[in-house]
Amino acid sequence: MNRPSTQPAHKPAMSTAGLAPSHPVQVLDEYGMPRDVHVAGERPLTLYVDKREIVTLMTLGSAPELLALGYLRNQGFVETIDSIVSVQVDWETGAAAVTTSRGVEDWEGKLARRTVTTGCGQGTVFGNLMDKLDGIRLPAVVLRQSAIYRTLQHVSEYNEVYRVAGAVHGCALCRGDAIEIFVEDVGRHNAADAIAGHMWLEGLPGAERVFYTTGRLTSEMVIKVAMMGIPILVSRSGVTSQGLDLARRTGVTLIARAKGRHFLVYNGARRVVFDAIPPAPPGRGQPRHGG
Amino acid sequence: MNRPSTQPAHKPAMSTAGLAPSHPVQVLDEYGMPRDVHVAGERPLTLYVDKREIVTLMTLGSAPELLALGYLRNQGFVETIDSIVSVQVDWETGAAAVTTSRGVEDWEGKLARRTVTTGCGQGTVFGNLMDKLDGIRLPAVVLRQSAIYRTLQHVSEYNEVYRVAGAVHGCALCRGDAIEIFVEDVGRHNAADAIAGHMWLEGLPGAERVFYTTGRLTSEMVIKVAMMGIPILVSRSGVTSQGLDLARRTGVTLIARAKGRHFLVYNGARRVVFDAIPPAPPGRGQPRHGG
Repeated sequence: MNRPSTQPAHKPAMSTAGLAPSHPVQVLDEYGMPRDVHVAGERPLTLYVDKREIVTLMTLGSAPELLALGYLRNQGFVETIDSIVSVQVDWETGAAAVTTSRGVEDWEGKLARRTVTTGCGQGTVFGNLMDKLDGIRLPAVVLRQSAIYRTLQHVSEYNEVYRVAGAVHGCALCRGDAIEIFVEDVGRHNAADAIAGHMWLEGLPGAERVFYTTGRLTSEMVIKVAMMGIPILVSRSGVTSQGLDLARRTGVTLIARAKGRHFLVYNGARRVVFDAIPPAPPGRGQPRHGG
Repeated sequence: MNRPSTQPAHKPAMSTAGLAPSHPVQVLDEYGMPRDVHVAGERPLTLYVDKREIVTLMTLGSAPELLALGYLRNQGFVETIDSIVSVQVDWETGAAAVTTSRGVEDWEGKLARRTVTTGCGQGTVFGNLMDKLDGIRLPAVVLRQSAIYRTLQHVSEYNEVYRVAGAVHGCALCRGDAIEIFVEDVGRHNAADAIAGHMWLEGLPGAERVFYTTGRLTSEMVIKVAMMGIPILVSRSGVTSQGLDLARRTGVTLIARAKGRHFLVYNGARRVVFDAIPPAPPGRGQPRHGG
């Protein structure tokens, strides 16, 4: 995580097989009238490593190579990107083929563990990652309210698929005023994995960055962000008890229900500088304790 | 699916270990003021069948016995509820222990398949269920707009955890004017599984029912509803291309973006009777094609 923010010497050979994220369909509205709308794409993508089948992911498919990379990183299948020779996605066969230079160590162990953990399934990677989490203490960074607002303003300019078709979640990696990458996918897990793949590929450390998501902050979102070394997590949605508990354990500053000028700080409040407090809403008077 | 809607002769012995769904926490708001809010609970629940570990689910925990039953049903681990002797949930150990009368046939095959399908993970159960789906043709039922509106009105009276804590999805099983069961969970998969467990337990067929969810209609939501034999699926959110494709294949009438008086019919439009068309919004004039 302390790697300098420069291009790594090695990059895998990668296809560029991103799909158009939405498709036009005709529906009837509540007036019984036809309307042309879009639906978000959703395609199965089966991930192979050295010709061995790992998993089938349902994905929007806009960043399939980054998704494959990030999935292997976040699931602990491959330790460093240096050992990945190529990532080739072919939608005709629905396959992402990853080739490594040294093979994967302890295949059986990793696949067996997955039976218990990803099986954990229905959207999480809980089990073995919890052990790794205990070694993580994220840097205590100061966060300015004005910076939160700038981030929210910038991400609002993205979310294109959501605006057109709905049915997706978006995740963004932000640094200072800039959004470095914004990924939408049908699962917020996938979008977070694709961002992990991007960080791996570009050799980006997490320490100076902010992770934004439209999705809920459940346990596995906090786990993924902590594993990426990112100390600040901002969501438009809410928080679960397990997400909050993991943020406290790892030191992730947790900002949720963030939209427009509104947000709530669930963890790390003493590191937030309130330098852009909005005027109290009309008729509310001064903000009060417990409001 | 053609079983009469009566109580089955057999019911497993079940614990009643539902948890309080939300917990109070203190946060800071955008004025820098403390506020007392709630977060949705999220707990790991490890499912054992005849002492064999199957999976760990992250759940709100409000209906853990139904979740265990429905998971076993929807994953195809157990064919009929008659073979289930008991479902005992113990939160101290985070375990749901299911005992069967005859054991599970072909353990190895089922667990191996799961490695590829639930592994499919990040929230789906795609692989082997697709084969089963091809045998399903749901009954072509007529749906009145007035009935859609009554359903939306009734579900709006639920969603309690969502209102208090957010970060959950809700699913409801509806029949005529009544909501038979409403389940919230941190994953909409879990909520759908719990409803499948309820239907199994009570011997309810799907044919005369409507399934409502606050969540997006991705592939696995349509798969689960089709497998339950329910011909009508209504969502507050959007639809993915794969969800739409599966609805067309199985004959599920698909209504999405349903909130208040608004909805869009994505599949099965010719079976919808527009008997409650709302007045056109002010300034819009008559509804037009392609609006």
